Amino acid sequence: MPNASIAAAAARESLAQTIIDMERTALDRWGRGDPSGFLEISSPDVVYFDPFLERRLNGLAELRRLYTELRGKIHVDRFDMLEPKVQSTETMAVLTFNLASYERDAVRRWNCTEVYRLQKHDGWRIIQTHWSLTKPALRQE
Amino acid sequence: MPNASIAAAAARESLAQTIIDMERTALDRWGRGDPSGFLEISSPDVVYFDPFLERRLNGLAELRRLYTELRGKIHVDRFDMLEPKVQSTETMAVLTFNLASYERDAVRRWNCTEVYRLQKHDGWRIIQTHWSLTKPALRQE
Repeated sequence: MPNASIAAAAARESLAQTIIDMERTALDRWGRGDPSGFLEISSPDVVYFDPFLERRLNGLAELRRLYTELRGKIHVDRFDMLEPKVQSTETMAVLTFNLASYERDAVRRWNCTEVYRLQKHDGWRIIQTHWSLTKPALRQE
Repeated sequence: MPNASIAAAAARESLAQTIIDMERTALDRWGRGDPSGFLEISSPDVVYFDPFLERRLNGLAELRRLYTELRGKIHVDRFDMLEPKVQSTETMAVLTFNLASYERDAVRRWNCTEVYRLQKHDGWRIIQTHWSLTKPALRQE
């Protein structure tokens, strides 16, 4: 590889680690009942999906309202982030992973897509979050 | 707004329309049983989630294998793409929407996140797809 390509690959690798670390830090706080880890790194224009909502949430105010109701109500013993992958340009980074979330005797499995954008003044911020259940057991209708 | 900002806003608006049109075109082919519309605009490094998979798919070959099994088996009468939103930089665009999919007498509701990246030679290509069911009815366990 020419030197410029090596440098670019190293920069991408370093960015991937930064993004994964940000996500893990927010997840650890989440597991202790504190949703602020995610709120603090989400952009004002963040959009959000999870399996308990009728529609996409639009903007940080809507996300804050949802998370305020959950504060202190969540307890996760341990997360396994499986095969995190980051696809990036200079100003956007897409993090995808499967997650095993261990809550007392139960384990929940998730699919997750986070999109981070580099903000002029604030560094990397989440602009899109999509949580869904991995292969959910559906009720017959 | 200064002229440069007006021009940038117009460019973003035009890009949003391009991305939404690409998605609608692929969805229309999907609804007629033809998954190639999505395969043709997906990048070799595409990653993919849907609610029927145990884990994320990695790369176009894995996605093609999945879609090959579905060819000709899907029939959707009509899609309603609800509130499509595009968040973009110059080289990446995140499209999110809710979807109502009308199949004979049933309607299925979806959450969707597509990430498009501008490729040097091929134009805009999907690098991440996440489909999940909107508020799925879960079986009691």
